Amino acid sequence: MDIGTVNTLSYEDFGNIFGNVVEKCPIIAAAVWSSRPFASLSALEAAFSEFIDALPESGKEGILRCHPDLAGRDLQRGTLTKESLEEQEGAGLDALESAEASSMARLNEQYKERFGFPFVICARMNDKKNILRQLSERCQHEGTVERAHGIEEVKKIGRLRLQGLVCHDTQNKL
Amino acid sequence: MDIGTVNTLSYEDFGNIFGNVVEKCPIIAAAVWSSRPFASLSALEAAFSEFIDALPESGKEGILRCHPDLAGRDLQRGTLTKESLEEQEGAGLDALESAEASSMARLNEQYKERFGFPFVICARMNDKKNILRQLSERCQHEGTVERAHGIEEVKKIGRLRLQGLVCHDTQNKL
Repeated sequence: MDIGTVNTLSYEDFGNIFGNVVEKCPIIAAAVWSSRPFASLSALEAAFSEFIDALPESGKEGILRCHPDLAGRDLQRGTLTKESLEEQEGAGLDALESAEASSMARLNEQYKERFGFPFVICARMNDKKNILRQLSERCQHEGTVERAHGIEEVKKIGRLRLQGLVCHDTQNKL
Repeated sequence: MDIGTVNTLSYEDFGNIFGNVVEKCPIIAAAVWSSRPFASLSALEAAFSEFIDALPESGKEGILRCHPDLAGRDLQRGTLTKESLEEQEGAGLDALESAEASSMARLNEQYKERFGFPFVICARMNDKKNILRQLSERCQHEGTVERAHGIEEVKKIGRLRLQGLVCHDTQNKL
């Protein structure tokens, strides 16, 4: 789909297509529709980022809390969203060795206990080893640092999801 | 559940229980969790309202756009949330006469065309006749008035959903 087509969508169609650009937060796509028309894919990406940045800090924590644990219960039960499943599989999180799986589970719990939201990372930009290393490191951070870090990862995830839905226009390619 | 129990919930359990207090906006319950502990059911209700009020105007429009049409496609297809289905059935919206159904469909479209978000009303505080009358009247409003009106209805719906999940404490009853 090109950006011209995006700009012709009703809020209902826009929501159906972009509702999970931010995991389980269809309100964000629904709000971003208010900023149409978008000059380019980059402008659409920016509109998502700007809306996220304008949320109160509790809202940013709310976004993080809508994310599933990596290699967690939703993956095991088959209740991940389509997008999240593809991303977690791509990083090899559906094929952890036993020791990796226990480390991941233990560190996820430790992270959630410390921060009150789950560890979020753009799985498509990482493999399972790298994810485990970063999870372990980020467990040591301060809460405000980690909230900001998680939100930057949410934006990366969203940018890749958007790029899978909308093609770059010529202007962007030059 | 009493408010003491609510205050002991993990964000995951809180999200599972209160995630649809605002229709299809689990991020709002997830954000409200940051304000715990809650002194009472009223304090919990206030936390939802305050979060909604703190959103940018596009975010308020986003909330409205996450709501289904009344007596619309989701009701016909059986894809409403459990809460919304009960509320629409309670108001008799699943049993419209043919003329009522056409009026509702026509006015819903007119409303969405004019405002860029759907008509939202607390169905549990109204019956189908009253809903049709208000839909017809509200189609004439200005956009900013109607956005604010819709958001007040979202809060009423949320308050009733919360009251169905959390019991009033003794303090509130006195």
